Amino acid sequence: MQVLEERIAREGKNLGGGILKVDGFINHQVDPVLMDECGREFARRFRDIGATKVLTAEISGIAPALTTALHMKLPVVYARKHKPITMPDQVFLTLTPSHTKGRTVELIISPEYLAGGERVLIIDDFLASGATILGLVRLAQTAGARIVGIGALIEKTFEGGRQALSHLNIPIESLAMISSMENEHFIFVQQ
Amino acid sequence: MQVLEERIAREGKNLGGGILKVDGFINHQVDPVLMDECGREFARRFRDIGATKVLTAEISGIAPALTTALHMKLPVVYARKHKPITMPDQVFLTLTPSHTKGRTVELIISPEYLAGGERVLIIDDFLASGATILGLVRLAQTAGARIVGIGALIEKTFEGGRQALSHLNIPIESLAMISSMENEHFIFVQQ
Repeated sequence: MQVLEERIAREGKNLGGGILKVDGFINHQVDPVLMDECGREFARRFRDIGATKVLTAEISGIAPALTTALHMKLPVVYARKHKPITMPDQVFLTLTPSHTKGRTVELIISPEYLAGGERVLIIDDFLASGATILGLVRLAQTAGARIVGIGALIEKTFEGGRQALSHLNIPIESLAMISSMENEHFIFVQQ
Repeated sequence: MQVLEERIAREGKNLGGGILKVDGFINHQVDPVLMDECGREFARRFRDIGATKVLTAEISGIAPALTTALHMKLPVVYARKHKPITMPDQVFLTLTPSHTKGRTVELIISPEYLAGGERVLIIDDFLASGATILGLVRLAQTAGARIVGIGALIEKTFEGGRQALSHLNIPIESLAMISSMENEHFIFVQQ
């Protein structure tokens, strides 16, 4: 998606260690018009998968998942990393390593909002190692739901996430695929 | 805002201790169409305040702040509760008591995205005691920005937040104002 690639090339920062900083338009400050365009594009790419719900992980996945869900007219659930007091005692919980946090984090979903038979589209900001998305896949499968698609704003193809998810045999769509970001020079995979 | 009030009356749960559970459409599962309507309504109510940026706090503020920012064509910044590794060492940080967490939480904004001279519209999911919003006000003022409006999806008028913010002398808009929620019977203040 050209508008996203151009924004990354212009404002993204390679902080080293595989960390891409996009805090100016995705991860701290958000450009809502760009997010809306990304949501529209995800909705277009996933229009035929019969999704009944969009699933993401707090915090950074919320913006693109919300705009995608808006264009698809579907509810969106964001997995929590801390169990709020409004959540019932029995929950779906999984552990997943966080690259940017350097530790394991919990992903928690209330059974109230993810049921057997749902067809789930996962949307997140990054597809890197795939660990967070695999955590969401485990939660959905535990709930008896079926994953029918995975979308990420930005894929770092050199971190192997797409291979880690390939056994699911479902469409995986990334709006910007970065194959290298040496010296702040971003190389995008042409789609 | 009638559509929001009706949704709260139908699906909201009073968990006691002043906790209103709206996890089915705002705080865990999100209804994007409802959020979009709320964002449009905030944009309408705040169209004349000359805002240059929308500010909220992660996590639950992101959805209404994003849709408001989309309708106002403004960037939105969400204050972080944990400093990510992408953030510089020097940040704006304040502490605020969290009613639902029963402890103090940090609110952190990078100086990269909140500058002197900005005119800030704060949008959050709840206006209860006003503590979180006052934390955002302190952060914005530290940055040299000016708060020009405050919007909340749901105000619990019996927790005093509006009084705590009244010294700011700026418009405060809530889309649903609850004056009582005894026995799951929600009483809304007519606006």
